[in-house]
This record gives sequence, C-alpha cells and structure tokens, in this order.
Amino acid sequence: MKAFYGDLRLGILGGGQLGRMLIQQAINYNVTVKVLDPDREASCRHLCNEFVVGSLSDYETVYNFGKKVDLLTIEIEKVNVDALEQLEKEGVQVYPQSRIIRLIQDKGLQKQFFKENDIPTADFQIISSAEQLRESHIPFPYIQKLRRDGYDGKGVYKVLDEGYLANAFTEPSLVERMIDFEKEIGVIVARNEDGEVKTFPMVEMEFNPEANLVEFLIAPSTLPFEVQMEAENIAKRIAETLNIVGILAVEMFLDKHGKILVNELAPRPHNSGHQTIEGNVVSQFEQHLRAIFNQPLGDTASLSNAIMINILGEAGFEGPAVYQGIEKVLKCDGVYVHLYGKALTKPFRKMGHVTIVDNDREKAIEKARYVQETLKVIA
Amino acid sequence: MKAFYGDLRLGILGGGQLGRMLIQQAINYNVTVKVLDPDREASCRHLCNEFVVGSLSDYETVYNFGKKVDLLTIEIEKVNVDALEQLEKEGVQVYPQSRIIRLIQDKGLQKQFFKENDIPTADFQIISSAEQLRESHIPFPYIQKLRRDGYDGKGVYKVLDEGYLANAFTEPSLVERMIDFEKEIGVIVARNEDGEVKTFPMVEMEFNPEANLVEFLIAPSTLPFEVQMEAENIAKRIAETLNIVGILAVEMFLDKHGKILVNELAPRPHNSGHQTIEGNVVSQFEQHLRAIFNQPLGDTASLSNAIMINILGEAGFEGPAVYQGIEKVLKCDGVYVHLYGKALTKPFRKMGHVTIVDNDREKAIEKARYVQETLKVIA
Repeated sequence: MKAFYGDLRLGILGGGQLGRMLIQQAINYNVTVKVLDPDREASCRHLCNEFVVGSLSDYETVYNFGKKVDLLTIEIEKVNVDALEQLEKEGVQVYPQSRIIRLIQDKGLQKQFFKENDIPTADFQIISSAEQLRESHIPFPYIQKLRRDGYDGKGVYKVLDEGYLANAFTEPSLVERMIDFEKEIGVIVARNEDGEVKTFPMVEMEFNPEANLVEFLIAPSTLPFEVQMEAENIAKRIAETLNIVGILAVEMFLDKHGKILVNELAPRPHNSGHQTIEGNVVSQFEQHLRAIFNQPLGDTASLSNAIMINILGEAGFEGPAVYQGIEKVLKCDGVYVHLYGKALTKPFRKMGHVTIVDNDREKAIEKARYVQETLKVIA
Repeated sequence: MKAFYGDLRLGILGGGQLGRMLIQQAINYNVTVKVLDPDREASCRHLCNEFVVGSLSDYETVYNFGKKVDLLTIEIEKVNVDALEQLEKEGVQVYPQSRIIRLIQDKGLQKQFFKENDIPTADFQIISSAEQLRESHIPFPYIQKLRRDGYDGKGVYKVLDEGYLANAFTEPSLVERMIDFEKEIGVIVARNEDGEVKTFPMVEMEFNPEANLVEFLIAPSTLPFEVQMEAENIAKRIAETLNIVGILAVEMFLDKHGKILVNELAPRPHNSGHQTIEGNVVSQFEQHLRAIFNQPLGDTASLSNAIMINILGEAGFEGPAVYQGIEKVLKCDGVYVHLYGKALTKPFRKMGHVTIVDNDREKAIEKARYVQETLKVIA
C-alpha cells in the first residue's frame, strides 16, 4: 500500500477545474502535487507544489513531466499516450492506465470495446471515408461523431437525411443510431489497485441543448430501483473489464423502452459527479485519490438530494469575468458555490458550478431554478 | 457589498492549519490569497497566490504585507497590532478589527471586558508583581495565567497552595478561581459587517490533560436545551458587544451547578470548529469568509453527529512525520482525515485532525475511539 500523505509526488496532466477540485481534496492528505497545463493562467496554477506550463500532447513535455513524479493521473483525456506508455515501462505509475486512455481517446475503439464485451450501446458503424458514410447501414436520422478530440459537444454532427451528408465530417468517425432517449443518466465507478470496486448512486442529467453541456443534474435518482441497479452494474462491469485504477464516469441513455445504452466513458473526475462533494459521504475527488493511491474506497451513499448546476459564461459576453448574483444565491440555505478561478469568460465556458442540497426534493429543484435565474457570468 | 470572488486580495496573517483550511474554502470563491508566516515550511506555503516569509510580530513586516492587500485577517492572535491599527487608518480592512485582537491578546483586558459587560466568568484578579500574587484575594487552589502569549496550555500555572508560589510566573498575569467544571463547552459565533449574527450549535469538549489540548469534541451537544441556548446567547452577546466582523470562538465551562462561565475568546477559526467542515451545512471557514466579505451568513445547522479528534505528534518522537494507521481508519465509513502538511512532528504538535460523522451517536463515539487508538504520528 502506497503512502497517501506527502511521500509520493502526484502529477496531474491538466490544470483545469477538475484538477483544482482534486487538489482541494488532496490537501487533506499532504499530497505533493505537480501540474502540467498549456495555459499559464490555468485554474490550478497557485494551488500546487509545482506548476509546469507545457503541452499535454507533446511527447517530450509529458515524458519529462512524468519522470519527476511517482504517480501520474489525468483530468483530461487528450494527452500524449505514447509518453504515458513509456513512463509506465520505466516504472512510473499511471492511473488510469495508458491503454485505457488510448481506448477512450478514440470513440471508435470505445464502441468496439462495448460491442466485444456485451456492454449495451447504440448501433454504430466505424467510418473512414465519405463513401463509407454514404453506404452506412445505420438508417437516418443518425449521429456522426469524430473518433478523436470531440469534447463537450464538439465533433458531433446530426445527419437527419441525405441532404446533411454534404457537410458531414470527412475525418475518421463513427455513425450511431440516434436514440430517442427518455433520460440521460450517469454512474461514477471507482476501482483501486486491490480490485475493490464501488459505484456512486446513479444520477439523472438535464442538458442545455444550446450549449450541449450538462446543465442540471439531480441525485439520487427517482427512477425505478431496477434501472438504477442495472446502471450501476453496467458501470461496475466496465470498470472490472477494463481493470481500471481510478474513477470512471459512465454516461448512459435510458431509452423510451426502458433499455440502458452506454454512451461514453471518461476515466477521470467528471462533471456528472460534482454534486458528490456535498451530496455524498465521500466525493468523486476523494474516491479518485483513494483509488489511485490504493486506499480503501469510501462510502458513496447519498446524504441528501443534491442538484448540480454548471455556471456557464453567458452568451454574448467575452472577457474578464464578472459574477452577478452570488450574494443572492448565498442567502439560500444549502447552496454551495464553486468557482473555477478562470479570469476570462466566453459563451458557455464552464466558469463554476453550484450544488443545491435539500432533504426536500421539490425544494431543491425550486432553489436550483432560482440559482439558474440569478447567477450570471458576464464580462 | 464587497466582491467575494477574485477582485479583492485577502491577506492572512499566519500560514498554519487554520489558514490552510480557510484557503481550501476560499478556492471556491476565486479569492486571491496572500499569506505571511515566519516559517518557510508553513502549511499554506504552496496553496496561495503569494507566500511571504516574515515575522508576524514585527511592525514593518506586517505593515508592508498589509499594504499589498485589500482585506486582512488572522489565523493567530499573536500579531503586531500597532501595524494593523495603522493599516486600518490607511483604509485597509482588518477583520477581526485590531482593537479586538489587542483586547484578546491580553488575558487581563479580556477578563475585564467580561466583567464590564456582565459576561459570566470565573472570579479573577490582575497581578503585576510577586507581592500582589501573595496578597491575592482568590483562595487556593487557583490558576495563574500570563496575560500575554499563552497558547495551547503554555503560560498557565496551577497554584494549589502556598508552596507553589515560589515557582509562579513573575510576568504580568491574572489569577483565576479554579473551576470545578462539569464540562468544557464552546460556541462559534459569526458576525458580518451588516450586523448579521449566527452561532454554530454548542459543542462539548474533552481535553487531553497531558497535552492540555482539545482532543475529542462532540457536536451537537446532548446537554439540556436551556444550557445550549444560554451558551449560544452568551456568544451572540459577546459578538455584538465587540461589534466583531468575522468569527469568534467562545470557550466556556459548565460548572457543577449548571452555571456557564466564559473562559477565553479566539477571534478566528478555531480548533473547536473543525467538525463543522463535514458536520454542518456551512463550515466555520466558509462562515468566516462570508463574515469578513460581508456576505449573507450561512446555515449553521448540524447535519449529523460529528466528533473531532486532534491528531497530535506521539510523545517520544521528533523529526520527519510518519503517519501510521490511515489506511485502517479510511476503512470506516464517515471518517474524514485532515492532515496539516507539517513536515516535522514533535510531541503533542497538532499534525492534523479527523472528523467522524455518524447518525448514531454511540457508533460515532466507538469509531472515534478506534481512530484514536489506530492513527499515530511518529518519526
């Protein structure tokens, strides 16, 4: 069992809000943290033992950074995996493992993994040319996704009929049957080196269609117990099949027929787990630390109803961020504001989140709506 | 109302664990934090925008540090108050106010304040010479306390009979009737600039007699409601009489006759409030930030039973700290470990704390005993 407190140098690839919240938790264990991020104004810049400015996709930069730490983790998947693989060979612990990051970087490989392991997912086809796209066996309407580098709704294109094909992506992609889903749901699962696996309770998500981002999330779910258990079991099965060390966010759809289909994986702390900070016995950040340091996983039980709202930059504003309405929001009990330390706002940029905790679910929803109307990030 | 997020530079005098936990909370609001501490290895050194090494008792050092911030707070009372007074004159906001720090630095003035404002406290007498001590009207056994610089049990001397007088302090001091107390209790109260005042629920403390430190604290209290209300009302009355801005820890005794006597004040986050991080809707650190930034104060309600244990350096060990038993402790649900980032341990040094949260009070106590037996800091 590794020392959890001070002896080991933890490297984090990425210095955004996920790294920032991971550090907030790591402080409790004296973890020595180094962060690599290309942005010298990244959220983590003042909160770690060492902040290195550099590219996450450059082999040499990632390799050299990794050589100076004992344990390396990520807060973003878009990193140089070849460097991670080399570091693993040289004895640096990389959690999640490089092979998992490689798999997840490529939506095509990810879907094939689902298929090979009987993980329920929407019908799909891997596409490598415009011709193949035209000959796809997936019926209209469908969704085309770039295999690589899609993020927060980027790299996704809806092909409603033949007329849309002209503007389709020409890069390697996959096409996927469009699911008429009832609900977007998610489960975060953790696995440590010893093989202990624990899931957080399933959450339900609401998307902002304009921004194509999770905007409103509620936990615990009120969907039937069987649905929740099935979702958690799918997440566990994926974690165990991957033998992942760390946490894994499993995004799923519940379709109109009550069937669960896995959409995407993220092998790191995830937007769909922020409400665990106040809403659960341990948070996703604590759990990720416990998993990668091979500590006993924590209790994931919900303490209350928790709603998470992303604070996005208002449309039409770009520049130094101004936060409106925080004082009003702080007048409500059980409302927790988390800002991400980003100096500049732009439309739909994730500037922070708010968690609303209330034993009364209806009251929680009411407060969440008030927060959404009240708190604005302008410039 | 001041901007709570990023625009203002907050200075903290002292970079120990209280500053560290204050920063953990301040991260959520993008607060720009500068820290002054004489120890270049202080707990906060890597967690702030700027860390300045320098004396807290030197006028020039404190003054120059204060000139570079907009709002100045403390995590230790032993600071140069003349500098703070000058900074206030020059427009820097100092919360708690310099006059309150000055009052609290001197246990004699503090006791006189209690007397003048009908705050119940043990009988006392101010002593400025060995002669006065001999002629004290307080009957044996009594306690002699240095007026200045006592800390965590230092500067306190028990005078059981005449034979003890030879070794008594000769510096300015006060003598105080020894209270045969039933229970040591505490209330943390906050007041913001607008005059809003809120107390946290009363806590009960257990002391380690060898180390003379709070070792075991339990909240909420099970003492009669009237006692709890009286304690909270006393705390409120003190905060309002002082017109303090910030939080104030009020340490009290409940004597064998059910009478509450105020022992000491601390105008800052306090060891007796650490359990609020997990045990209450808002923590003392969040509340202090809200108070000094003149934000609405947060809900102080208890969420569960919470027990706080200090993790002290084991007797007989001095040197680079080694933490034993953390893995075992993390196997228990609802156990939260907070280490303070101190490289070196020494006997009874506060190296961290653990909060145990459980809806079942007896189970919480059982877990707390297990943690106490299991978690050790050696060298």
